[in-house]
Amino acid sequence: MTERAYVREVGLRDGLQMVKTVLSSDRKLEWCCGALDAGISEIELTSFVPAKIVPQFADSDEVFRRANETRTNGTLSALVPNLRGAQRGMELGVGKLNYVLSASEEHNMANVRRSTDESIADFGRIVQLRDAATGVGVRLGAGIATSFGCTISGAVSEQRVVAIAERLAALGADEIIVADTVGYGDPAQVKRLMSAVVRAVAPLPVAAHFHDTRGLGLANVAAALDAGVRAFDASLGGLGGCPFAPGATGNIDTEDTVFMLEAMGFDTGIDIERLIALRAKVERWLPGEKMGGAIARAGVPKTFRMPVEKAA
Amino acid sequence: MTERAYVREVGLRDGLQMVKTVLSSDRKLEWCCGALDAGISEIELTSFVPAKIVPQFADSDEVFRRANETRTNGTLSALVPNLRGAQRGMELGVGKLNYVLSASEEHNMANVRRSTDESIADFGRIVQLRDAATGVGVRLGAGIATSFGCTISGAVSEQRVVAIAERLAALGADEIIVADTVGYGDPAQVKRLMSAVVRAVAPLPVAAHFHDTRGLGLANVAAALDAGVRAFDASLGGLGGCPFAPGATGNIDTEDTVFMLEAMGFDTGIDIERLIALRAKVERWLPGEKMGGAIARAGVPKTFRMPVEKAA
Repeated sequence: MTERAYVREVGLRDGLQMVKTVLSSDRKLEWCCGALDAGISEIELTSFVPAKIVPQFADSDEVFRRANETRTNGTLSALVPNLRGAQRGMELGVGKLNYVLSASEEHNMANVRRSTDESIADFGRIVQLRDAATGVGVRLGAGIATSFGCTISGAVSEQRVVAIAERLAALGADEIIVADTVGYGDPAQVKRLMSAVVRAVAPLPVAAHFHDTRGLGLANVAAALDAGVRAFDASLGGLGGCPFAPGATGNIDTEDTVFMLEAMGFDTGIDIERLIALRAKVERWLPGEKMGGAIARAGVPKTFRMPVEKAA
Repeated sequence: MTERAYVREVGLRDGLQMVKTVLSSDRKLEWCCGALDAGISEIELTSFVPAKIVPQFADSDEVFRRANETRTNGTLSALVPNLRGAQRGMELGVGKLNYVLSASEEHNMANVRRSTDESIADFGRIVQLRDAATGVGVRLGAGIATSFGCTISGAVSEQRVVAIAERLAALGADEIIVADTVGYGDPAQVKRLMSAVVRAVAPLPVAAHFHDTRGLGLANVAAALDAGVRAFDASLGGLGGCPFAPGATGNIDTEDTVFMLEAMGFDTGIDIERLIALRAKVERWLPGEKMGGAIARAGVPKTFRMPVEKAA
């Protein structure tokens, strides 16, 4: 049996928060539905922050409502930096909320103006809010940014990251997301830290969020696979970055990530040709934005998904 | 103790055979000596083919002689496609000759107009020539191109690649070089095939030659490290390709490869800042050539070579 692996599209959130062009609600909807149609299982559609901070997300409520009415498969999720954002997401009926804090105190302070401990306590309040609600409970992802180092404070203790993951799991997270926000991780560190987090929070699923800032994005995905991780954030054409991490441009590319996973024998459930067509469309919508990635340019190998006489 | 890993510069051979600008002998020499000064242990300086096939290499004998007089460290090597090229290399006193044949019959036929078996027999004659010579013997690398698939014939049996490696080792190779000439390999296949080759020819060293055509170059390096490989071909700025493999542009990038190995804790003996400066110089010499790679643009992380509190 082929093992399943998941690629989540975060371009609408992590990509769009960085670009100059403000996309219309219609186009956001087309991107979202196109990705779901291609087989993407989770779309991180927006970040529930005030419109004055990220004008790109002023129409988030409308985009979510319309996407939720249209979709026939997949999960719509949103990033939330605090309790207020989580409240908004729950009221809207978002299926999954991905809360994020930073392992680096300095980065957390720059991002949400509070200590990491305060952000962890806030996550506890979000869980309480979720548990108090009636009806189908929203799933809560808990993300740990700057897990592999920080552009402001430098090295981040891996033991600290594991301890934060344990605390978020104990509070009630449905998934831990370990993020290399600034593209500092290398395959050795990824394998070591992701293995430790997977062990610490088992059987909770652990996802990875990598940036390709220094060319190691896909090598880090392969290392995380070795550590047992099976879910990866990515954005079409590698759009994205972090507004508070200078130079941290470039999520890993959705198409290239899907290609690597499928080439390695994982089943992503995703149609790569439809993704490539969607990427071309999004690229036309964002004039002046540089899209990266190799597979849209080079095409899949002649041998893609073909059997080979394997070495013993 | 830090483990050693080796990055060999093949840009002067695999890169220059693809570019339009014919570099002067002086500049080739400057590139070669600059790379040696940065700590590169082996420079593949040229390919000993007739000047009418690759005009870029018309001055190979002169460039080799001058580089050999100038250098104070490292090995100068050359690619040889046949016995005639090997003879020329031995007469010139080249320290290492890297012979290459293709695991794909069709690719071998397109490249050197003979069967893979005939090319293996030719390697036997090169070994005899080497062994018959007096003085310090030249070292012989034996490369297997299209080991991960072929643009002409598609899938290549991994068992066949292992069998070819065993035959080249038995004939007297000093090193086996497994090459993904067309950028088809993925980390799962790389780990499986490289592990099999390493086991089959042990204790002979095995090197890898990867192309980044589909973005998996560095992920494949990390997978080959897992398989015990410790030597990698790369070219400055990722220049290069294969003239008989359409679309197979892009060796892995020397600077990025060195960065990843050092970040993972390997000692390459290479000064990455000097490499980046050399890359900038070579880029100016080759107007119109697109150089790739991330680290020259993004710079090394703040945490590069810094200690971190590691996860247990």
